[in-house]
Amino acid sequence: MKMKRILILTAVVFLCAGTAVFAEDNAAETLELFQSAFDMIWLVLAAALVFFMQAGFAMVEVGLTRAKNAGNIIMKNLMDFSVGAVAYFALGWAFMYGATAGGFIGTDQFFLIGADSSLLRDWFFQVVFAATAATIVSGAMAERTKFTSYLLYSVFISAIIYPVSGHWIWSGVGWLGNLGFHDFAGSTVVHSVGGWAALAGAITLGPRMGKYVEVNGKKVSKAIQGHNMPLAALGVFILWFGWYGFNCGSTLSGTDLSIAHVAVTTTLAASTGAIGAMITSWVQFGKPDPSMSLNGALAGLVGITAGCAVASPVGALIIGLVAGILVVMSVEFIDKVLHIDDPVGAVSVHGVCGVWGTLAVGLFATPGSLDHAGLFYGGGVYQLGVQALGVISVFAWVFITAMVLFNVIKKTVGLRVEAKEELEGLDASEHGMESYSGFQIFSNM
Amino acid sequence: MKMKRILILTAVVFLCAGTAVFAEDNAAETLELFQSAFDMIWLVLAAALVFFMQAGFAMVEVGLTRAKNAGNIIMKNLMDFSVGAVAYFALGWAFMYGATAGGFIGTDQFFLIGADSSLLRDWFFQVVFAATAATIVSGAMAERTKFTSYLLYSVFISAIIYPVSGHWIWSGVGWLGNLGFHDFAGSTVVHSVGGWAALAGAITLGPRMGKYVEVNGKKVSKAIQGHNMPLAALGVFILWFGWYGFNCGSTLSGTDLSIAHVAVTTTLAASTGAIGAMITSWVQFGKPDPSMSLNGALAGLVGITAGCAVASPVGALIIGLVAGILVVMSVEFIDKVLHIDDPVGAVSVHGVCGVWGTLAVGLFATPGSLDHAGLFYGGGVYQLGVQALGVISVFAWVFITAMVLFNVIKKTVGLRVEAKEELEGLDASEHGMESYSGFQIFSNM
Amino acid sequence: MKMKRILILTAVVFLCAGTAVFAEDNAAETLELFQSAFDMIWLVLAAALVFFMQAGFAMVEVGLTRAKNAGNIIMKNLMDFSVGAVAYFALGWAFMYGATAGGFIGTDQFFLIGADSSLLRDWFFQVVFAATAATIVSGAMAERTKFTSYLLYSVFISAIIYPVSGHWIWSGVGWLGNLGFHDFAGSTVVHSVGGWAALAGAITLGPRMGKYVEVNGKKVSKAIQGHNMPLAALGVFILWFGWYGFNCGSTLSGTDLSIAHVAVTTTLAASTGAIGAMITSWVQFGKPDPSMSLNGALAGLVGITAGCAVASPVGALIIGLVAGILVVMSVEFIDKVLHIDDPVGAVSVHGVCGVWGTLAVGLFATPGSLDHAGLFYGGGVYQLGVQALGVISVFAWVFITAMVLFNVIKKTVGLRVEAKEELEGLDASEHGMESYSGFQIFSNM
Repeated sequence: MKMKRILILTAVVFLCAGTAVFAEDNAAETLELFQSAFDMIWLVLAAALVFFMQAGFAMVEVGLTRAKNAGNIIMKNLMDFSVGAVAYFALGWAFMYGATAGGFIGTDQFFLIGADSSLLRDWFFQVVFAATAATIVSGAMAERTKFTSYLLYSVFISAIIYPVSGHWIWSGVGWLGNLGFHDFAGSTVVHSVGGWAALAGAITLGPRMGKYVEVNGKKVSKAIQGHNMPLAALGVFILWFGWYGFNCGSTLSGTDLSIAHVAVTTTLAASTGAIGAMITSWVQFGKPDPSMSLNGALAGLVGITAGCAVASPVGALIIGLVAGILVVMSVEFIDKVLHIDDPVGAVSVHGVCGVWGTLAVGLFATPGSLDHAGLFYGGGVYQLGVQALGVISVFAWVFITAMVLFNVIKKTVGLRVEAKEELEGLDASEHGMESYSGFQIFSNM
Repeated sequence: MKMKRILILTAVVFLCAGTAVFAEDNAAETLELFQSAFDMIWLVLAAALVFFMQAGFAMVEVGLTRAKNAGNIIMKNLMDFSVGAVAYFALGWAFMYGATAGGFIGTDQFFLIGADSSLLRDWFFQVVFAATAATIVSGAMAERTKFTSYLLYSVFISAIIYPVSGHWIWSGVGWLGNLGFHDFAGSTVVHSVGGWAALAGAITLGPRMGKYVEVNGKKVSKAIQGHNMPLAALGVFILWFGWYGFNCGSTLSGTDLSIAHVAVTTTLAASTGAIGAMITSWVQFGKPDPSMSLNGALAGLVGITAGCAVASPVGALIIGLVAGILVVMSVEFIDKVLHIDDPVGAVSVHGVCGVWGTLAVGLFATPGSLDHAGLFYGGGVYQLGVQALGVISVFAWVFITAMVLFNVIKKTVGLRVEAKEELEGLDASEHGMESYSGFQIFSNM
Repeated sequence: MKMKRILILTAVVFLCAGTAVFAEDNAAETLELFQSAFDMIWLVLAAALVFFMQAGFAMVEVGLTRAKNAGNIIMKNLMDFSVGAVAYFALGWAFMYGATAGGFIGTDQFFLIGADSSLLRDWFFQVVFAATAATIVSGAMAERTKFTSYLLYSVFISAIIYPVSGHWIWSGVGWLGNLGFHDFAGSTVVHSVGGWAALAGAITLGPRMGKYVEVNGKKVSKAIQGHNMPLAALGVFILWFGWYGFNCGSTLSGTDLSIAHVAVTTTLAASTGAIGAMITSWVQFGKPDPSMSLNGALAGLVGITAGCAVASPVGALIIGLVAGILVVMSVEFIDKVLHIDDPVGAVSVHGVCGVWGTLAVGLFATPGSLDHAGLFYGGGVYQLGVQALGVISVFAWVFITAMVLFNVIKKTVGLRVEAKEELEGLDASEHGMESYSGFQIFSNM
């Protein structure tokens, strides 16, 4: 009878527990679906915002260059995404996120074969980052590059150059990531990669005709004004808008509550970037310069991209301000001292400020945010050292491969249009059209 | 005593189960709210993105036409949405989603009377689709249509033409949907409807002055260049961006994990659409044409819209590529052979590529995605047949009603402006303003 | 033995209940996280949309003014956000949402010290609203304001003027909110504040040179046309798009299912606003005016902002229509009768229609939506009275402080540029650049 009672009691216990477990099971399944839905909605919307940055880059580059090349710039921006997306589908993703070969390069998942919904989601989020890196280059190479050659370049950066260094840092198994290198949303992974490829391109191409003139045996830089400041400004606003997808989306999860922190640091750094560049241009040229201020906002955004999750709001204010000052000095230095012709300042905005942002992680990372806090918070120099190592390694990889790539193109199909084509404008020579039909436009060079 | 024990045990069971049920009840209610919240957030944000496509259409149409008509085009784009939204609120929704009369037309819910939050949500998501169909037409009718007549047309397409064929396919009880016709996000429901109404409009209006000239007894088409390529490009980027709301949002649920699949196929088809059109224009005209390439991206997007959830990524690559090639051939055919003047290529992009995308479902639907897989996956011709039936039925419905509508307008209030108004430009004649005050602009016709 | 049995039974009960409670606990924690994630995703995305409205304002203002001042307008729009964000971080948030001093002003949380993720989220959502109020003013002060002075003004409105009246209404402990004043998304809190500061600025500055001329002893207003209607239209579409973040986001929660209701009323009011202004301009000037129609859409949006959650869809149709009519009459009155020069109509759109929208709550609030229904629903005049009190109080606070601010600036650093600078254009005089380099532009004044 005792046995019987125990049996009954046991049955009761299982019955009760069973009901609870059943409830829990049902709920658990739903909760898991909801977690996936949060991540899905968040990453797809963030990726769409990052995609929209393509429009921002196009408008900035169009606005800061001459009317006679506007259609050509549009074409480059449209096609580097289109060609790049196919390349990143076929090869790029696999090299970046496939099973690693020694932490240096991925080796499977070509053409996303067998991808499930979360892999497709991740590819969509990553392809727009790859395209950002690719499109940065077009600005520095504007107004003189052969269209065919630009298409070729686009394939290589999206399929190989960008994915390999990306693998080092973002794959979870890359050698730089393993050392503790931290680049939350891509100051180095995306922006510096774009910036250094842009530098290689601008050097290999040489300056636009009439950009540098000899005066008394000295090379003097002449300003070549852009033709549409409102479009350039629109582009910057679009980029800033899209950057909320870029940085906040890089939480990679829709239930990560640090999203707000990232939004705040991004906003503050962009603001002080614009302010810093405005003041610097004011001091240097006597007047607050719109195109410098616009680039300053971008500089602040690039600067905070690596550290947006680990810097404090006040840290972000400083990072942005420094980036804003830096971008003006860098633009001047590259133009006036190095005599490298970068029509929109892409190398300074993305390359130089990308470096600054990456190093800033080693200075401003708050205690607890990373294994090693930043130098300014008493965390020592470890993090700064790793960040510097990453900066140098990525520079070496990208600059060297891009120099090889552009020089091979130069020697084979040719990288630059003919002088008379450049004078006439690339819209007419490369595409047989004009961008502002009906408007009276002076050839201003 | 045994009874007593059983009673106690029973009480225990109910107590335990009760606790569990209570937990489950509470959780269930919350989970239900969360499901609603996912759908709410997802559809409202997707709808906002689709709304933004209005800006894209406006910029594309402005950019590809002449400066003297820019203000008029803006007005048409603004007002077809405004008038159309009110019409779709009063009548359109009811005809599309009201209780069905034989699968042909809805019959209640006029003015959304008694709508709850999920019906309001659905209306918001649907009204931006209706507005997309409506606004497509303005491009084909640009530069010569009377403003008053255009307003009239806008009421009819949003209140009747679009909702009726939409009812056939998307109401859940329509005759075409019942046959298994599949159009995930609206290659036919939205784009072809807009495209065929555009065709009827362009035919009824006749070509712009100076578009076709007799040379040795033969009609020769003269290109009338657009005036602002950067704005046209901006428009395409905006449309592409908004398309992520258009296609991905058409899951209609925020917890449907196929969202990622849709985002990927959409991205790839748009990319190969741009590439396909670029190459085709290159072969055909000797140079890669920017406006064709931009239209190619749109063609790819229209092409993948029906099948974005059922085609594989590789299928999407092919669908987009074919759409890109098709759009160039179609633009040439409609212009050079049919001598129908469609200033922005709306009939080719939305009508022709809408047909292609709809048929492509019958070719590329992967096994398991629909009751009948596509022809290329061994599913036979059933799906292709149903898709073809839908294409023909919707063409017949829209083209005939639109022809009647435009011809009634033509005979009564008049459809076209006077010759001297057309020469002067519609900004001056219809609106008493100029769009680029201060700029030197040549009358280029 | 009975005791033993009871003990066992008790144990069983606790065990069962325990299992259930454990399940519930686990789930409860996850559900709480999910609730936070909904609010986080919703508010961050909505805030990003509201941020994008900065691009909209910039394009509207650029488009509706002259080419020679385009770069200056860009700079003002960029810098009022940048400077304003820093000011709202340091001081503004604290004055608006810090612990109240008698319901009149907040007193802590300067620099967001100690902020957690939900406070950071709320700051991000609020800073973009503050920036909206700030940037409205630039339109009314366009084409003649000293850049330095504009920067000064930006600090004050973002740090003090906007936050104080915001505290009265939105802090949860403000004196106006306590009385039942209802302003869902900011017809008064944001738009009227911007509008009244704009009025103070336009009055203090005086009209642009050549705007009013004496003809037979009578002051006659001369139209000064904007230079880029497509950009103005793009700006309006961007603003409308962003408004879905502005109004729908103001639910402040991602699980509030009234989001759809807000989206619907917003859409309908914007539409009838555009229609109302188009018809009014048609009647008044003989032709449907594009810039008036564009402003009409904005007027409808401003009008529905206060009542978007409490007005019915039909109520929204009426509120928008009245706003559209009102904005044309107000623009005419302020220009032709008051002779105040507001280049883009900012005072009419944001100030006057902000008042209309705020009062409309007292007329159109449906029963159950507020403690007191609107007058038209038999709720009596209480709500209308409170709304009127709020309108007057905020007008007094903003107009007086802004007049003091602008006059202090005028007496010290100076508010207006020199006559020859104004003639030459502010791009050249204030920034040493031109916005449309290469284009032939006539000085049209």
